Amino acid sequence: MATIPRATQFAARTSRLRASTIREMLKVTQRPDVISFGGGLPAPELFPTMEIADITRRIMSEYGAAALQYSVTEGIPEMRSWVARRLGRRFGVHFEPESVLITNGSQQGLDLIGKIFLDPGDHVVLENPSYLGAIQAFDSYQARYLTVDTDDDGMIPSSLEQVLAHAEPLPKFVYLVPNFANPTGRTLAAERREPIVRICEHYGVPLIEDDPYGELRFEGRDSGPLIGYRTEGVVLYMGTGSKIVAPGLRVAWIVVRNQEVMERLVLSKQAVDLQTGSLAQYVFAGFVENDAMLEQHVQVIRRVYKQRRSYMLECLRELMPSYVRFNRPEGGMFLWATVERPGFDTEALLRVAAAQKVVFVPGVSFYPHRDVHSGMRLNFSNTKEEVMRRGMERLADAVRAQSPGG
Amino acid sequence: MATIPRATQFAARTSRLRASTIREMLKVTQRPDVISFGGGLPAPELFPTMEIADITRRIMSEYGAAALQYSVTEGIPEMRSWVARRLGRRFGVHFEPESVLITNGSQQGLDLIGKIFLDPGDHVVLENPSYLGAIQAFDSYQARYLTVDTDDDGMIPSSLEQVLAHAEPLPKFVYLVPNFANPTGRTLAAERREPIVRICEHYGVPLIEDDPYGELRFEGRDSGPLIGYRTEGVVLYMGTGSKIVAPGLRVAWIVVRNQEVMERLVLSKQAVDLQTGSLAQYVFAGFVENDAMLEQHVQVIRRVYKQRRSYMLECLRELMPSYVRFNRPEGGMFLWATVERPGFDTEALLRVAAAQKVVFVPGVSFYPHRDVHSGMRLNFSNTKEEVMRRGMERLADAVRAQSPGG
Repeated sequence: MATIPRATQFAARTSRLRASTIREMLKVTQRPDVISFGGGLPAPELFPTMEIADITRRIMSEYGAAALQYSVTEGIPEMRSWVARRLGRRFGVHFEPESVLITNGSQQGLDLIGKIFLDPGDHVVLENPSYLGAIQAFDSYQARYLTVDTDDDGMIPSSLEQVLAHAEPLPKFVYLVPNFANPTGRTLAAERREPIVRICEHYGVPLIEDDPYGELRFEGRDSGPLIGYRTEGVVLYMGTGSKIVAPGLRVAWIVVRNQEVMERLVLSKQAVDLQTGSLAQYVFAGFVENDAMLEQHVQVIRRVYKQRRSYMLECLRELMPSYVRFNRPEGGMFLWATVERPGFDTEALLRVAAAQKVVFVPGVSFYPHRDVHSGMRLNFSNTKEEVMRRGMERLADAVRAQSPGG
Repeated sequence: MATIPRATQFAARTSRLRASTIREMLKVTQRPDVISFGGGLPAPELFPTMEIADITRRIMSEYGAAALQYSVTEGIPEMRSWVARRLGRRFGVHFEPESVLITNGSQQGLDLIGKIFLDPGDHVVLENPSYLGAIQAFDSYQARYLTVDTDDDGMIPSSLEQVLAHAEPLPKFVYLVPNFANPTGRTLAAERREPIVRICEHYGVPLIEDDPYGELRFEGRDSGPLIGYRTEGVVLYMGTGSKIVAPGLRVAWIVVRNQEVMERLVLSKQAVDLQTGSLAQYVFAGFVENDAMLEQHVQVIRRVYKQRRSYMLECLRELMPSYVRFNRPEGGMFLWATVERPGFDTEALLRVAAAQKVVFVPGVSFYPHRDVHSGMRLNFSNTKEEVMRRGMERLADAVRAQSPGG
């Protein structure tokens, strides 16, 4: 029987798949001589390795096989209660464990949200720039993007109002990162929070509040989460254990009070992977259940990241030409720099920089319409001070080399 | 600002989401007085709990933070090499680690395959009955199903040929479980394997070989995998650690030699969850790297499951009325029984049985067109012998109560 030649037929949605600049960079930066401000990696030297070994032994003794067996799609009860309790304590807002779904990292949360809301061609409202992982997740559902203006205080409510007032049809949801955003490090100002909730409520558009970095505030005061406001609208809050414990466990969560939304998320998760790893959930719950231990651990992370952020600012001030601007985030893992020279392209800069063994993520990746080329995301959480200066020297040289007359 | 009332707008694909009978049953069967032949659970008393505690400690000492950090989407090198090596040793077929993608359980493999191949309305070829988790995964991509006749030796090649010859358009892929299938326990006969590969090759239709149970053969001889034949066609092989180590780790794999298919799978996985848990992969790799230890462990599982299967057969012969037929699988976790009475409906039987505190999965769930009502899937791996007899007594009573004149 002869073969009928036929190219493999892929689904339409795969045409929009593109490799993540960041994930590809992870491969490059595994070369030890490259200094990376590129990844979004937490500082591994702060991971509680031996505590996790101890907890695993305890879990195996106490729960035994149950911690290795299949478990329910929603997440183990210990995790769901802890998430509800933690949010409650931080913000004084009551949540039921039934409002919590445990996901395989926040990226899965983004995928599930895309899955339940998005048909091909649907609109999504994003900050500009916005988190790349979210754009990738929504791309795979063939979303189109409406962008809202942002400034140093995050999304501008009047711009959101404008976008929704003129959107036809209405977008399926609004997505934002309220605290120490990726990529910009910006935080949504307290006085903008309720207006954004009310605008989404008014138009009946769900609001996705993705908060991976909120626990990492090292200066200033927390604003309450958007999900904390009483509203007739639908708010989905996303949190993660990746930044306060470790990303390799893949334990994150979605919190939503709307039961129909929760049911569709759970059914979707059943279809995509049945459940988040049982052992990972038990180990995570075992680490965080001790409030004092967790608090102490997160305090160490905040202190180290603060030092690194401050040192990076010092290096930037000292080493960069004056036309490089940068902000001063009060928490998180990233700061945002722009090269204020006409036509400057940080993708071209990356090629020069990589040859000099320093990397970062060019800002263009974070703009849904890929139309702004002057920005760069600089990660400060994963570089020790002695290495940071050397990296900044290389980067400053690369910027000057790329700036005519620089 | 008044709220414009507006129901939450979900994506079209969510209209086909349905709760898995099996997952819902998991909740019922957590009541300790219910005897369950329903779940697809491995025997938890065989899980290597203390070995996993020891391995975790060793991983934390040897790899330290790397085992808790983000890692590459494809899977850690230790896992990819082990999968290639294990398949190579079992079947004498060479695989490169680059042909292996580590997934968050096999369910994620099914989801990714749906994601890269299926547009709404596309056709998929299934055995009849077929694995429910696969139907659910493909449902969420709005697939339609073509069914191929099967008998005790699995999919019938001439029926597959017929289906493909008349399919317009051609289906996107053929999906089957070659060894100790879920739900029937049937194994695809050795002499049918190459013909199925050649038919798919001829029509240029990818072949998905889902093999979660192949390692659990306790009688007879292994046939080689479908991916073992040299072919110009595309074959995707799926394996899992859930049945040989533990499902709660969520470590499974897809093996495919076609580079374009692998790239799309990897990009899709990047968008859905970035990566499978780093710690889970390191722990799994730490357990299986010692061939002798793994072999010994799997031998114990095979021995226990064989005893349980044989004892279930004994109970069925002794307790069931003669119009209940059942098969005798040579491995795996399930056997398949049918009630040969006109119009008998095992969904109705389940309601009666559940009231008597014994449950199973009604066969209809596994027929893509939900048109055959006489079958039931009986799991033997997760019930000890003393409990099994009691469960079978209850089930036989329920069958008689549901059979007029029974």
